[in-house]
Amino acid sequence: MTDAPPINLFDYEALAEAKIPPVLWDYLVDGAGDGITLTENRRAFERIVLRPRTLVDVSRIDLSTSLLGAPVRSPIMIAPCGPQGELCPEGDCATAEAAGRTGMLMVASGGASRAIADIAAAATGPLWMQLYHYGDRPRTEAIVRRAEAAGCLALALTVDSPRFGRKERSLRTEDEYDWPELANYAGLPAPTAPSIRGAPVTWADLDWLRTITSLPIVLKGILTAEDAELAAVRGVPGIVVSNHGGRQLDGVLASVDALPEVVEAAAGSCEIYLDGGVRRGTDVLKAVALGARAVLIGRPVLWGLAVNGADGVFDVLTLLRRELTDAMALTGRPTLADVDGSLIAFSKLRHSRA
Amino acid sequence: MTDAPPINLFDYEALAEAKIPPVLWDYLVDGAGDGITLTENRRAFERIVLRPRTLVDVSRIDLSTSLLGAPVRSPIMIAPCGPQGELCPEGDCATAEAAGRTGMLMVASGGASRAIADIAAAATGPLWMQLYHYGDRPRTEAIVRRAEAAGCLALALTVDSPRFGRKERSLRTEDEYDWPELANYAGLPAPTAPSIRGAPVTWADLDWLRTITSLPIVLKGILTAEDAELAAVRGVPGIVVSNHGGRQLDGVLASVDALPEVVEAAAGSCEIYLDGGVRRGTDVLKAVALGARAVLIGRPVLWGLAVNGADGVFDVLTLLRRELTDAMALTGRPTLADVDGSLIAFSKLRHSRA
Amino acid sequence: MTDAPPINLFDYEALAEAKIPPVLWDYLVDGAGDGITLTENRRAFERIVLRPRTLVDVSRIDLSTSLLGAPVRSPIMIAPCGPQGELCPEGDCATAEAAGRTGMLMVASGGASRAIADIAAAATGPLWMQLYHYGDRPRTEAIVRRAEAAGCLALALTVDSPRFGRKERSLRTEDEYDWPELANYAGLPAPTAPSIRGAPVTWADLDWLRTITSLPIVLKGILTAEDAELAAVRGVPGIVVSNHGGRQLDGVLASVDALPEVVEAAAGSCEIYLDGGVRRGTDVLKAVALGARAVLIGRPVLWGLAVNGADGVFDVLTLLRRELTDAMALTGRPTLADVDGSLIAFSKLRHSRA
Amino acid sequence: MTDAPPINLFDYEALAEAKIPPVLWDYLVDGAGDGITLTENRRAFERIVLRPRTLVDVSRIDLSTSLLGAPVRSPIMIAPCGPQGELCPEGDCATAEAAGRTGMLMVASGGASRAIADIAAAATGPLWMQLYHYGDRPRTEAIVRRAEAAGCLALALTVDSPRFGRKERSLRTEDEYDWPELANYAGLPAPTAPSIRGAPVTWADLDWLRTITSLPIVLKGILTAEDAELAAVRGVPGIVVSNHGGRQLDGVLASVDALPEVVEAAAGSCEIYLDGGVRRGTDVLKAVALGARAVLIGRPVLWGLAVNGADGVFDVLTLLRRELTDAMALTGRPTLADVDGSLIAFSKLRHSRA
Repeated sequence: MTDAPPINLFDYEALAEAKIPPVLWDYLVDGAGDGITLTENRRAFERIVLRPRTLVDVSRIDLSTSLLGAPVRSPIMIAPCGPQGELCPEGDCATAEAAGRTGMLMVASGGASRAIADIAAAATGPLWMQLYHYGDRPRTEAIVRRAEAAGCLALALTVDSPRFGRKERSLRTEDEYDWPELANYAGLPAPTAPSIRGAPVTWADLDWLRTITSLPIVLKGILTAEDAELAAVRGVPGIVVSNHGGRQLDGVLASVDALPEVVEAAAGSCEIYLDGGVRRGTDVLKAVALGARAVLIGRPVLWGLAVNGADGVFDVLTLLRRELTDAMALTGRPTLADVDGSLIAFSKLRHSRA
Repeated sequence: MTDAPPINLFDYEALAEAKIPPVLWDYLVDGAGDGITLTENRRAFERIVLRPRTLVDVSRIDLSTSLLGAPVRSPIMIAPCGPQGELCPEGDCATAEAAGRTGMLMVASGGASRAIADIAAAATGPLWMQLYHYGDRPRTEAIVRRAEAAGCLALALTVDSPRFGRKERSLRTEDEYDWPELANYAGLPAPTAPSIRGAPVTWADLDWLRTITSLPIVLKGILTAEDAELAAVRGVPGIVVSNHGGRQLDGVLASVDALPEVVEAAAGSCEIYLDGGVRRGTDVLKAVALGARAVLIGRPVLWGLAVNGADGVFDVLTLLRRELTDAMALTGRPTLADVDGSLIAFSKLRHSRA
Repeated sequence: MTDAPPINLFDYEALAEAKIPPVLWDYLVDGAGDGITLTENRRAFERIVLRPRTLVDVSRIDLSTSLLGAPVRSPIMIAPCGPQGELCPEGDCATAEAAGRTGMLMVASGGASRAIADIAAAATGPLWMQLYHYGDRPRTEAIVRRAEAAGCLALALTVDSPRFGRKERSLRTEDEYDWPELANYAGLPAPTAPSIRGAPVTWADLDWLRTITSLPIVLKGILTAEDAELAAVRGVPGIVVSNHGGRQLDGVLASVDALPEVVEAAAGSCEIYLDGGVRRGTDVLKAVALGARAVLIGRPVLWGLAVNGADGVFDVLTLLRRELTDAMALTGRPTLADVDGSLIAFSKLRHSRA
Repeated sequence: MTDAPPINLFDYEALAEAKIPPVLWDYLVDGAGDGITLTENRRAFERIVLRPRTLVDVSRIDLSTSLLGAPVRSPIMIAPCGPQGELCPEGDCATAEAAGRTGMLMVASGGASRAIADIAAAATGPLWMQLYHYGDRPRTEAIVRRAEAAGCLALALTVDSPRFGRKERSLRTEDEYDWPELANYAGLPAPTAPSIRGAPVTWADLDWLRTITSLPIVLKGILTAEDAELAAVRGVPGIVVSNHGGRQLDGVLASVDALPEVVEAAAGSCEIYLDGGVRRGTDVLKAVALGARAVLIGRPVLWGLAVNGADGVFDVLTLLRRELTDAMALTGRPTLADVDGSLIAFSKLRHSRA
């Protein structure tokens, strides 16, 4: 494979593994506990079966949509993840440049290797910033101000990490690596709250956050109808259905398995995005058919970055976009509006709510 | 196995793999994407469980039926596939000769190594011609005229290939092979439409096609009740339930899993054929029990052709026919009319429509 | 394992494989086609889950029952199978002696290595004779007379073999073995009917058979409710639910999966026996809980015979009987009458009738 | 792994296997029959899918509860198991000391290596004693008196062992080990009842037992709603849902699969505990969500004991407790009262009662 160009995202994974130091690799691919949820994030997609339509005019395939009003060229977003500076010198800035080149939206990581101002400078497409609420409110407010100043269009508040999950592969090796500082926290005072390993956040914190900024705040890490209903009541504009890439608590729902109940509970009151396990154009199609407005991809972006910097990311995004275009053509859905639940052959093996 | 005679179609597969150049082999056995649909085409058959009847007079087993009115000696048809000329010098003509010897119907490939006139000359049984609508209408019309002139009894319009699927195993190696010309397109002008890799076709194209020929036009590549209903409304005489051998879009329904909904939607208005994954006599029996009038076999014909030319094809067809005869006897169904849904033990794992 | 005594039937299988010539082994363990039904016969048992009761007085466990009125010491019968003379010089006579020693009923094979008169002479317990209707009625009648003369209490007419299944492992090697004559057919004239490989039999043949003998005739090889209903209407006294050890047609129901519908259809009008895949005492218990009056075991008897003649068979039967006794004690069922459907935790994965 | 500290219970298993003599190891890890229930005890947990809530205040996680009125610091109990004296010189006393250090309840084994008086002397937390009713009533009464004298708060009567299961791995090797005496039976007269290998006990024995002691008597080994209903009618204060670690009868329900029906049948009339297969904090959480008041862990305690005596046990318990704490935080359940059925994504694959 060394010389042949990669033809799918798994090729990038293999190339990246050969380049990335093992301890860092362990950290990037790790899942919590026994890795069941990590595996299920993929398997759940593979279990979903498509019902393609034929004899439709698919001479033009239109992937464009909008995310909280901002037009984008495809329903694929860059998930916040890191540490990108360890994979390529320009780090998150390279990713931002590649995302802009493809007309996709990037969610910059709160824990990025580069400050949000730098990432924004490199970005030519729409930019959101992911936010952990850890430490204390003054720290969080400082980050919000930096996101506003950088021109971010929205904040994505991570709600699934009141403690950081036990990624056991990493736990065994992480001491052997010299982990970088988080650029966005440079110059901020130390947290006042008693430190625990995690980013605890409550509905009250969300309410407070909404008082200090006019940026729309998306919740990242919702997996249940109950939380979606609470979010809808509060007028939350967007929800990222996510289990944090299987890195927080092993045994929770695969994210695409959680998607239908969240979509149903939100009942059109906000945009729903799907994060976790997306590797194929058909995965994007399946998520959209189940009600997602867009998907986020994380680890594959890191593979691209490690293999070939911004051009690697661009190629990863282009491959995925091309697969999605093909999948829409081959299922007779020329636009995203044509992608609905009739595309899915529901099996009787799906989870049901208690 | 080298010296012992093959006793089933899998033996032919093994023998063929040893003879066919690797790059060509990759192309022939390939599936799109991760190969899930390719695998499911077989697994779906293996999941179907038979309920045999006993104490019936099965001293005579009658496999004869008719296809669009043409009598045939068994409900097994030769699927259009190629490039047969690369596997044996006589190519598609050898296949046509073997099909006639067994009283089976052949669907000649539009992309055959030999011109339809030559194939028709070699055929002693009923012949249909498969058709891609690519390039433009004049090109398609020219092919139709050639099919008519050759005496084909019907056309099988492929509707699942508006783009050609990404067969990844082939993508990695296809440049190493010197692919042949398509005989049926010899002497035709170049296509006028902007070339994309595929054969896009719409219901409007079908309507047009029906104005230029009186041949019955069967649709090949339908997988949903919705499309079957649209076909029924138009009076389409036959539908091939097919996912193109898993070669177009990975993740779509296994063809035999799609069969019941298509049969139900067509409601007897046309003949339904099943293509994809048939390797055993019991597979034919299962498809017929689920409502198919006949099945198509593709790759196994190529194995036979590669191993021993027309005689190899004849032996493949004879083995399959013999297995079907045994299966009918051992389930107490002496004629195809006796093969109905009561033969199937429906499990609760099947897909249901949304 | 060579020196340690076998502690279960699988140990006997391993010991037997080491002793039996490979070609004969292939024949004995073979299944039809791809072996799916052969495998499912075991898996279906493994999928059945038990619900044990506690705090019951199980100081005495009573396995005794009766089969068509004849008292037996356990609900385990010897299935007809062969060729036993190839495994031990005394062949079927050794088996008969061991069966008698355990108070179990033996169904002597129509294709036994020893004549039914000899087997009867060696037997001290109840004896039935299995019957193929092949060749012609005079031949069948001759066999019936021999069974009557030998004192058999019933006939077990095999109804699932109008043709003999394609056991592919054997097909590849059977020519290398010198197969013995069938003792029961010695001295009979050649069959008059055109020979095909099989034992075709119809309801009309059954009706005729009932006119020529007063022995009760059990049907062996029923797998559906429909055939059970037809048998019940005719007053058939017993049904062996069996797929011939997976040796006839691959893809048919696992025998224990077919048991519930046969039991329900027979509605108490006759005794139901289960044949196929029984290897553990809990398998016997499961079959009885699902409505079987007894089970038949075949291959394990052959392992015992090959390993240690009559004593080997006795040990196999004793091990199985002991496991059943333990299982009854550990589920709180001191008698077979206590073993009912409440013992089974029905999963939602079972097959349903169309 | 040799030098790195264990980070989960499976690490302790691996370390213990390297230290424990093989014959003893075989005995400890063994399951009855083919080991299906042993395996299912784990798989059933892995199949259960969690639905985590977010944005809840989880700054304080409270694991405390009470067991039959005695306060404990977590819903994790030490299961009765042995022979602990073979794994560490202090044996069960070391375990008792470690249990007290973590504020957990220990159920001392009736077959302990150390007498209950010694164990009680080492214990600083609440103590119950497990009881086999074997031999005869005088022997049982003598044990009860010793438990009372030692200050045990309850008795756990094992009801699933009227015979001891056939643990086949052990059967093959147990003669090679010099098994220790049972300390609690020292000085008692030999049993008067005819000895069989087991501890048969009936509802009548339970009734008698209740007349001779005022200690609450918990039933250990119930797996069905029927037995739970009988226990409820008698006012039994606690039930341990257990299949004896898969060691008694292969094929019975996984214990956590049996939990819902027992909880429903008991209808709040008594406390329900879950024993079997618990290895992860999420397993504890799942059991509590399905209605268990607490779980018991057995083999992992032995791993800890073998690896590092009382400190090993303490570390095992601490790891599990920490995982549970994390799991409660990450599912938004700060107290055990918040852990209910809405935490479980019920799949359609669960067993249903006949």
